[in-house]
Amino acid sequence: MPIPVPAADELARLLGARFSLAQADRELHGGSETYHSAPPPEAVVWPVSTEEVSAIMRICHQHRIPVIGWGTGTSLEGHALALHGGIVMDLMKMDRVLDIRAGDLQVSVQPGVTREALNTELRATGLFFPVDPGANASLGGMAATRASGTAAVRYGTMRDNVLALEVVLADGTVIRTGTRAAKSSAGLDLTALFVGSEGTLGIITELTLRLHGQPEEVAAAVCAFGTLEEAVECVTATIQMGIPMARIEFVDGDAARAFNLQNGTSLHEGPHLMVEFHGSPASVKDDASKFGELAADFGGQGFDWATTPAERAALWRMRHGAYRACLALRPGATAVVTDVCVPMSHLAAAVAAAAEDISSEGLLGPMVGHVGDGNFHSQLLVMPGNAEELAAAKRVATRMAERALAVGGTITGEHGVGVGKRPLMRAQHGAAIGVMAAIKAALDPDNIMNPGKMIPETN
Amino acid sequence: MPIPVPAADELARLLGARFSLAQADRELHGGSETYHSAPPPEAVVWPVSTEEVSAIMRICHQHRIPVIGWGTGTSLEGHALALHGGIVMDLMKMDRVLDIRAGDLQVSVQPGVTREALNTELRATGLFFPVDPGANASLGGMAATRASGTAAVRYGTMRDNVLALEVVLADGTVIRTGTRAAKSSAGLDLTALFVGSEGTLGIITELTLRLHGQPEEVAAAVCAFGTLEEAVECVTATIQMGIPMARIEFVDGDAARAFNLQNGTSLHEGPHLMVEFHGSPASVKDDASKFGELAADFGGQGFDWATTPAERAALWRMRHGAYRACLALRPGATAVVTDVCVPMSHLAAAVAAAAEDISSEGLLGPMVGHVGDGNFHSQLLVMPGNAEELAAAKRVATRMAERALAVGGTITGEHGVGVGKRPLMRAQHGAAIGVMAAIKAALDPDNIMNPGKMIPETN
Ligand SMILES: Cc1cc2nc3c(=O)[nH]c(=O)nc-3n(C[C@H](O)[C@H](O)[C@H](O)COP(=O)(O)OP(=O)(O)OC[C@H]3O[C@@H](n4cnc5c(N)ncnc54)[C@H](O)[C@@H]3O)c2cc1C
Ligand SMILES: Cc1cc2nc3c(=O)[nH]c(=O)nc-3n(C[C@H](O)[C@H](O)[C@H](O)COP(=O)(O)OP(=O)(O)OC[C@H]3O[C@@H](n4cnc5c(N)ncnc54)[C@H](O)[C@@H]3O)c2cc1C
Repeated sequence: MPIPVPAADELARLLGARFSLAQADRELHGGSETYHSAPPPEAVVWPVSTEEVSAIMRICHQHRIPVIGWGTGTSLEGHALALHGGIVMDLMKMDRVLDIRAGDLQVSVQPGVTREALNTELRATGLFFPVDPGANASLGGMAATRASGTAAVRYGTMRDNVLALEVVLADGTVIRTGTRAAKSSAGLDLTALFVGSEGTLGIITELTLRLHGQPEEVAAAVCAFGTLEEAVECVTATIQMGIPMARIEFVDGDAARAFNLQNGTSLHEGPHLMVEFHGSPASVKDDASKFGELAADFGGQGFDWATTPAERAALWRMRHGAYRACLALRPGATAVVTDVCVPMSHLAAAVAAAAEDISSEGLLGPMVGHVGDGNFHSQLLVMPGNAEELAAAKRVATRMAERALAVGGTITGEHGVGVGKRPLMRAQHGAAIGVMAAIKAALDPDNIMNPGKMIPETN
Repeated sequence: MPIPVPAADELARLLGARFSLAQADRELHGGSETYHSAPPPEAVVWPVSTEEVSAIMRICHQHRIPVIGWGTGTSLEGHALALHGGIVMDLMKMDRVLDIRAGDLQVSVQPGVTREALNTELRATGLFFPVDPGANASLGGMAATRASGTAAVRYGTMRDNVLALEVVLADGTVIRTGTRAAKSSAGLDLTALFVGSEGTLGIITELTLRLHGQPEEVAAAVCAFGTLEEAVECVTATIQMGIPMARIEFVDGDAARAFNLQNGTSLHEGPHLMVEFHGSPASVKDDASKFGELAADFGGQGFDWATTPAERAALWRMRHGAYRACLALRPGATAVVTDVCVPMSHLAAAVAAAAEDISSEGLLGPMVGHVGDGNFHSQLLVMPGNAEELAAAKRVATRMAERALAVGGTITGEHGVGVGKRPLMRAQHGAAIGVMAAIKAALDPDNIMNPGKMIPETN
């Protein structure tokens, strides 16, 4: 149903040209990176301040209009689709780095700052922000999905790196969660509650993030393995031995082929690990040599060290480009992206079972993973409109999730639930879904915050 | 009001002798480590299983009887006092280590396992659990208060080290939060919600904890400083330089004097830092020498290295015994314990202002602190019954909290809110208190879970 005229009038008065009913704007805010789709929202708004976000929420609350937050729109499970109509709130005009407090290893930013923009801004400080999803996502979106990336094994995910938030609730109330102290025991952990809430509880309008010192020394390498199991077992052994990895990423043969096609590299088209070590020169040398010995035990060979910063940047650019590179393996295809995460001791079996399942369904599904966390993805390539392929991909994805749950893992390590993983939520959480639904109902009784997402019992 | 007879009958039938109305049992579960007091609870129960906890909650829910969880009763803000009567649920008979999964660096425990009992159990595995409050507290109580300790600067607090929980809700529903995977983006972070909830949302009946490998090399030392400011500024510089400390603790002159009296040591009775480094032999050597140089810059002297494991154990035993040692400075006294935590760059000023305030009120208040997190305590020694002293101590504590809030810090870094810090909650959280109250009301509509604590707007 269209936006009621009085609400549209109020929004237009408040925002001028930053309220749009234009088809083009709506379509730009109605898509998804993957196979999910829905009709575009009824309107788009671009607030520039917390006060505007609050005013918009008050209007939408009064008229019960759904509001869907939007950062860079790179989420993979149809998170930001306007399933029940309403307004998409694009936060990318709130893109200021507000306050770098280098001495406290902290920064305050608006939600529309991207991770790359933040790190560019931090360059002169000797500090960096470590969470690096493959897309140059917004920090608001990353907090909303509890994103992680290649360096989570060392520096943690958004859960660990968001210290405090400013949030606008469904009725327009502005709250602040958390503090600038490193830790706090003062009441319920609302910061953690909003991180990962996917826009279903409120709109994040400011974030206080932890920063980390640029390591004195960095060493990165890529290393080939004979089999997928050997590569993954090497990861498990590395983590169990406590070798402090800054990054340890898995790439299967199909993904290596995609990398070669995209980047003109000549990787052996089999399984690889990509690793990085951070620390003092002495400790990096130590860690790298320990890892080298371990890798050799698992048949790792052809260590290729990226020694200059430029070589390292190229290596990780290649890894971050995996999604596009893999899509290019099958021109025209879209993807069903899996994202299970399992306890370390079950990782090798989980990856092997997934590989077998993908091939027995006759699908092409290159695999990469933040395996230091037990997290890996298959990007199942399906042709839009091919219902059979899509069904097969969904079967594979569901079985991967079920196998992950059977060993105590999770259906999504970092991408989040959105609409795609919602049918699996009850299998993971059981009665705890009732608690999530009760919290949702308590904070958003009219269900206007990104309705139809994440929590299965809400509409 | 006493337990209604039908409820008492049901509880007696369910629990036999593990339901007690005896005065002695009630009094044992009606006290507090500090100056807080209240009449004892009406009854005490000792469940031995999740099923029993659930059955007890169903009975208490039906009869609207308050239930207060109880671990070792060492919380410092009157957390477990039966302010509104009801039943104390002592969880110390649920004390089994359920499942050590060394390969996943995880353990599942019942809530009544103490941190020392867990580490004893882990000894053969080469793993340890790092959160170490000064008391040998229960892991359930530690999760409920979001406790930390001397090693949080390196290994994090309970927030970081609890992966999953089993919780019994107010109506007896049993839920499981979290997974055994290292990270998850599957819905609201209920684990983080229950960690630090101080028994106001449910009873924790099982915990899945992260473990860490015993470091290959450990070095610990104590070092004296000329002034409090120099000691604390040395900490700030250490953290800002990114020297990876496993522990970095501050001790003031009064606390050093208390240590000497208690332990027969002969520390210089001025400010000290106690430090520890974990890692490979090369990195520990490196870190220790970098810290040594930095400490020298701030006038640190008389480094006393604890080289054997026994010496190290004695050093940290002395630190963990600080609370009792400081109480002994003034026989018969009880304590008002402060617990602010501030951003690193404000730490020296915060400690100095506290010291000045304590002395200008004419109080004795030795200070110690987990200063690597920006967290420090003054233990204000007051004589029971001396209303003037108590008022002075509370004034000092309130001003410390206010100064912490003014620089973006928190009123409690690790002890929690209980009843003592409740009046300060609104100053810290503002409108966010409404969100905490809404969640409390949604999960515990009859307000039977530890009523009167933590969230000021609830009764
Ligand atoms: C090529 C590629 C690689 C990727 N690699 C990774 C990876 O390695 N790790 C990983 O975790 N993810 C990865 N992703 C997924 C995606 O980048 C992340 O989910 C990211 O966090 C989304 O951020 P965004 O700004 O695009 O959010 P959007 O997609 O715009 O929104 C995501 C969700 O958050 C909500 N939202 C957005 N902003 C706000 C706000 N300010 N307040 C409240 N709610 C808000 C939206 O309503 C929506 O529900 C990848 C995606 C792509 C396309
Ligand atoms: C000498 C001394 C030193 C201390 N040092 C530190 C320190 O360094 N760091 C620190 O953080 N704290 C410290 N403390 C405080 C105290 O040890 C911690 O708060 C500890 O976490 C309390 O654990 P407990 O088992 O004693 O809990 P209790 O005091 O028994 O209970 C604490 C709270 O948790 C609730 N609770 C207990 N068990 C459960 C459960 N299973 N489910 C739900 N709720 C439950 C209770 O209702 C209560 O609200 C110290 C205390 C003392 C006396």
